Amino acid sequence: MKIALFAGDGIGPEVIAQARRVLETLELPGLTLFEGDVGAAAYRRHGHPLPQETLAMARAADAVLFGAVGDFSCDDLPRELRPEQAILGLRSELGLFANLRPAAGFPGLEHLSSLKPEVARSIDLLVVRELNGDVYFGDKGERGSAGGREGWDMMSYNEAEVRRIAHSAFRAAMGRGKKLTSVDKANVLETSRIWRETVIEVAQEYPEVELDHMYVDNAAMQLVKSPGQFDTIVTGNLFGDILSDQASACVGSIGLLASASLGERQTDYGTFGLYEPIHGSAPDIAGRGKANPVAAVLSLAMLLRHSLGREQDAARIERAVEAILADGVLGGDLGGTASTGDIGDAIVRKIV
Amino acid sequence: MKIALFAGDGIGPEVIAQARRVLETLELPGLTLFEGDVGAAAYRRHGHPLPQETLAMARAADAVLFGAVGDFSCDDLPRELRPEQAILGLRSELGLFANLRPAAGFPGLEHLSSLKPEVARSIDLLVVRELNGDVYFGDKGERGSAGGREGWDMMSYNEAEVRRIAHSAFRAAMGRGKKLTSVDKANVLETSRIWRETVIEVAQEYPEVELDHMYVDNAAMQLVKSPGQFDTIVTGNLFGDILSDQASACVGSIGLLASASLGERQTDYGTFGLYEPIHGSAPDIAGRGKANPVAAVLSLAMLLRHSLGREQDAARIERAVEAILADGVLGGDLGGTASTGDIGDAIVRKIV
Ligand SMILES: CC(C)[C@H](C(=O)O)[C@@H](O)C(=O)O
Ligand SMILES: CC(C)[C@H](C(=O)O)[C@@H](O)C(=O)O
Repeated sequence: MKIALFAGDGIGPEVIAQARRVLETLELPGLTLFEGDVGAAAYRRHGHPLPQETLAMARAADAVLFGAVGDFSCDDLPRELRPEQAILGLRSELGLFANLRPAAGFPGLEHLSSLKPEVARSIDLLVVRELNGDVYFGDKGERGSAGGREGWDMMSYNEAEVRRIAHSAFRAAMGRGKKLTSVDKANVLETSRIWRETVIEVAQEYPEVELDHMYVDNAAMQLVKSPGQFDTIVTGNLFGDILSDQASACVGSIGLLASASLGERQTDYGTFGLYEPIHGSAPDIAGRGKANPVAAVLSLAMLLRHSLGREQDAARIERAVEAILADGVLGGDLGGTASTGDIGDAIVRKIV
Repeated sequence: MKIALFAGDGIGPEVIAQARRVLETLELPGLTLFEGDVGAAAYRRHGHPLPQETLAMARAADAVLFGAVGDFSCDDLPRELRPEQAILGLRSELGLFANLRPAAGFPGLEHLSSLKPEVARSIDLLVVRELNGDVYFGDKGERGSAGGREGWDMMSYNEAEVRRIAHSAFRAAMGRGKKLTSVDKANVLETSRIWRETVIEVAQEYPEVELDHMYVDNAAMQLVKSPGQFDTIVTGNLFGDILSDQASACVGSIGLLASASLGERQTDYGTFGLYEPIHGSAPDIAGRGKANPVAAVLSLAMLLRHSLGREQDAARIERAVEAILADGVLGGDLGGTASTGDIGDAIVRKIV
């Protein structure tokens, strides 16, 4: 079993260090770890946010555990050299098309949400976001126009792209509440029309799943008004970027939320994937022991489950995290005083 | 002074009828009212959701008061005949490029929000959404691809388009808290790069306004976490569609929220514009006296202010609405029992 650790920038290295300790505590037989450079750290060392060595390391691994990328020092670089290109490049080069973003409240932490406690408590949803298409990866550029310089980006989805993410979403919904909401803007976009037609077609194969469709503006509204109505949401890259962050904010404790980005390649143990906390690089608190490593540790649990087929180890980690939260081992982001290392220590001690 | 009333579908006619009563109570000298068909109602009568007569009526008027469009019976029509085309067509044909969507809590109604009362109470923001460009009005279509049928939509903004909406937004910010947040996705989109560069250029002319930039995913997160941080937000058509609905949902009482869509044409009294409640046609409750006409009435107040230069009449209406809400005259949507007509009666009685 090979795991590539890409710690990245800001608080990335600190949180990945704790996840690594947790991983080592599990003493998995035959596990090899690699470390690769990504983001601003990679740009400084190799002149590129996603060096060829890093990409090769990812391809050779069964899974990637990713920290975070982004650094103010790179704000003035051309887009292709900026830290975000590391994650965009990994997603496209590795064919990581299915982003799973669970958002669920942690018992006892509802007060951290800006939503009323009863609303926050009702949240238990999964956003399945397409990651390889849409306006993210279409042709784009700048051209002249009667109105001066014009920026343009091509948005598109074809049936094959929608079909594979729809299958991922229906399968995920089957393992959850069997309710899938497909989000689009079919009253305005041709891209969404193909999206919706294809999702409806795929639905035939999952008769047990209740499917509905929602326009993205309404979805953004409903996610605030009554997020408890959602079970599984499937949507494109751009709408998924917005809605998954909104859903995370509804939960209130984004320092605790993990994500998986899965591809089609099967490893000997499961599906190849990249796992990352949804919080960013938070350069303002980096290097001061203030980062919450829980999301990175829970990303590791997702990695063990989906890419290494180690459900029991994943569950051990998740139970340990629940236990330390119940014990009140909380970082500053959750109103507590525990440092990054304290939280890592506590989780390691609870792993049994 | 000429006002065109386009009541439309669902609860549109009911709420516009009450707004009309309020308008008549003001006894404005030399006021002429026209009524035009839009949406599914227009499709049924004329075979098109935005008949030429309606468009001509709008062009001849100083302002349009719009109800709502949308009807389940039209779900299977081709896109160009669906009710939404009425509002999209009016926006583009009349050059209504600046959509102003205020979102602010009403004192005493914070409990209607799913946000904690102290968070809901902190909301007092204005979304300035560009309405004539972006992926809404670019070329679009369906084509073949290796992955089967592919839907595509061109997203773009040029400097002239961004400049004019930026000016609207900076001017609006000057009349509010002098803080403007421009929302884009400049880490991914070329459209956003031109957007951001142009907003920064226009900012030179408004040195008193504090400008910042936020990615749309972060904005969706911040709008949930701490909506009180925002004063004025400016963004493109697509992101504005999503964020303005999200902001309205944060307030909690969308039956009370109004919007203005302004063009460049100056009338004898102000700026030509279209005004509409942000709630939709709500076909499920149509025709049963259950609709809340407050948003339509407040849209009328915006119309009087921006298009007819009648600030005092606008303020009279707004005070009357505040008074009836304080008196507890609330529709079912706000937990009360007042009918559409009861609410209209109460507002008319308070107009002094
Ligand atoms: C950094 C950025 C390009 C990225 C995205 O938009 O996909 C991020 O917001 C995310 O959601 O992982
Ligand atoms: C009906 C639809 C086309 C429209 C839009 O997306 O602009 C609506 O959502 C709005 O915001 O007025």
